[in-house]
Amino acid sequence: MEAYLDNSATTKCLESVKDIVVKTMTEDFGNPSSKHLKGMQAENYIREAQEKIAATMKVNPKEIYFTSGGTESNNWALLGAALANRRMGNHLITTAVEHAAVLQPMGFLEEMGFCVTYLPVDEQGTVRIEELRKALRPETILVSMMYVNNEVGTVEPVAEAAEIIKAANPRTLFHVDAIQAYGKYRIYPKKLGIDLMSVSGHKIHGPKGSGFLYVSEKARLRPLILGGGQQKGMRSGTENVPGAAGLGEAAAEAYRKFEEKTAHMEMIKRRFVEGVTRLEDVTLQGQTADGGGAPHIVSVSFRGVRSEVLLHALEERGIYVSSGSACSSNKKLPVSTVLKEIGVEKDLLESTVRFSFSAFTTEEEIDYCLEQLQALLPVLRKYRRH
Amino acid sequence: MEAYLDNSATTKCLESVKDIVVKTMTEDFGNPSSKHLKGMQAENYIREAQEKIAATMKVNPKEIYFTSGGTESNNWALLGAALANRRMGNHLITTAVEHAAVLQPMGFLEEMGFCVTYLPVDEQGTVRIEELRKALRPETILVSMMYVNNEVGTVEPVAEAAEIIKAANPRTLFHVDAIQAYGKYRIYPKKLGIDLMSVSGHKIHGPKGSGFLYVSEKARLRPLILGGGQQKGMRSGTENVPGAAGLGEAAAEAYRKFEEKTAHMEMIKRRFVEGVTRLEDVTLQGQTADGGGAPHIVSVSFRGVRSEVLLHALEERGIYVSSGSACSSNKKLPVSTVLKEIGVEKDLLESTVRFSFSAFTTEEEIDYCLEQLQALLPVLRKYRRH
Repeated sequence: MEAYLDNSATTKCLESVKDIVVKTMTEDFGNPSSKHLKGMQAENYIREAQEKIAATMKVNPKEIYFTSGGTESNNWALLGAALANRRMGNHLITTAVEHAAVLQPMGFLEEMGFCVTYLPVDEQGTVRIEELRKALRPETILVSMMYVNNEVGTVEPVAEAAEIIKAANPRTLFHVDAIQAYGKYRIYPKKLGIDLMSVSGHKIHGPKGSGFLYVSEKARLRPLILGGGQQKGMRSGTENVPGAAGLGEAAAEAYRKFEEKTAHMEMIKRRFVEGVTRLEDVTLQGQTADGGGAPHIVSVSFRGVRSEVLLHALEERGIYVSSGSACSSNKKLPVSTVLKEIGVEKDLLESTVRFSFSAFTTEEEIDYCLEQLQALLPVLRKYRRH
Repeated sequence: MEAYLDNSATTKCLESVKDIVVKTMTEDFGNPSSKHLKGMQAENYIREAQEKIAATMKVNPKEIYFTSGGTESNNWALLGAALANRRMGNHLITTAVEHAAVLQPMGFLEEMGFCVTYLPVDEQGTVRIEELRKALRPETILVSMMYVNNEVGTVEPVAEAAEIIKAANPRTLFHVDAIQAYGKYRIYPKKLGIDLMSVSGHKIHGPKGSGFLYVSEKARLRPLILGGGQQKGMRSGTENVPGAAGLGEAAAEAYRKFEEKTAHMEMIKRRFVEGVTRLEDVTLQGQTADGGGAPHIVSVSFRGVRSEVLLHALEERGIYVSSGSACSSNKKLPVSTVLKEIGVEKDLLESTVRFSFSAFTTEEEIDYCLEQLQALLPVLRKYRRH
């Protein structure tokens, strides 16, 4: 049996996504910038994908810009907003538990002379929202906050943050990294007060190398990638038509039978949590401990077991999980900075594993994983002690 | 009958490319950063693609970095090199006929305080190489030159330029935009003295949204996209495994039976040139007029016929060509800056069409296109005069 429980690292492409990717690679393969029929056909795929995505978020299709993925979306949002609004101020705010695709560009902006405040989090990884109020200054041009934490599944108070930000200064831009949240929550940027929002295709059963940035019509943003002026000059380069079309399909599909799917994930998560907490010396991380958190991520510390050892033992049994964040490619640094930020005790830092689900995860996979954990843990612990 | 003669805008994906893309989207869909088996499998695809590409260029696989396409490669090469070597100087050199994906980043670097020299070209679009010698200064940190011009097919004196640059200062980096040249020429960066080289996947029957930058081990370059540290920290973001694998396959295939393929393209081009020059009031642009130029691009001016009108008349007959560069998405500016730079007379600026071939273009397609041109031109000219 196989159980792929690493859906926050990446997901399997949908059949319907594969079909549209193949069609646009081999039949309707034109360049959207070409003035002939094949160019028009290609352009239609782009427009349709924008429409499909916009419909899921109740925004204007023109506010959807395609990128090469979540990381580019985050880089663009931060650098583009900072450079475009520099005259208004040089202060930026983010949180201590953001993904490296936010933290690293923030570091670069600091090097460029911007000043960045990193908001602290509580022991579940929830941003201390009162700190946001204190951190806002007249010269704050951008706040960036993730919707769902990729390592522990904590849901951040995005709506509350938006209210606080806009009350202080309606011109301060609010960027949300929704890479782990889109498809799991209904997110309406206009209602919430989000100006910029990053999404990745391969986290929602879409193609790798695809993503988008929602850019509110009101937001001032400079392009990150310059050239032929595609996408209204905001993101140059021949559009990745198969990527965009595949992403459009994946986005639409993510919100079809949405309640059914999230209910399924919640059920799967509950089943897993109930089972895993019955095991000895187990600690749930993040909001999951209190019954909260995203429906598809569970972070568990297994005292006395090295996460890497457990990961490989599970792998041998066809179960795929993650130690720390798979989005960080530094394989020599297994210890998560997020776990440190939320104050996980030193002994558990290297004993924490992330299990992440999708709408396609089955009860059988969960039960199989739990069985194997139950069998493995005593052996691994024993092995370690001797 | 159909004749797709717009291969410099984009190409149809190979079946073998499609197959590997499908396999990595639906079966071997792991994230290369995952530590388990599915991650390793995915990582293998990336390594194999690097090896395939490196073999075509006689470089080290580790010198191949995947990007989202030629435009990102060009942006990264220029911004990355300029920022990493700023202490050595602030002078950059490029040419007046580069693609917008070079000219626009150069403009941005000027805004950042760098000084850029634009080398002039002769009436065929060939860079005046003696001007390069004059332009080089002790503080020149980077020279960027295209290998093949995308609009008129002119082959630039890249080898000569490299010699001149390295003789003046071995530390000055040489970037080559090889987007229209890779797959049509054997390009060995180490032999030629190229430090950075941009290639796009979709121009060589590979996937859209894929490309690479060759970065010599000796070159200092900053990353453009920051985050999880993928690709040795040089290009963050989950690797586009299907894109990279597809690009690796397309690259290998481009150099299989290479002599046969280029000979075929040369034959196709000769056949087209012979036929088209028999028509009335026709002028060849670029080096093609003298029997030179790239084997896959022919730029022709048809006096008294608007290129857009001809483009659409051909389109109605299933023939797809380009007016100006399809890589520029500004549909309201049909007049090419390259044609202006090479001194095309005003009357012909809006009467120039690009025909571009691939290894799969057939003699039948060429003959069909020539027949249709012969029938159409007198009608369109007559129509215009009345």
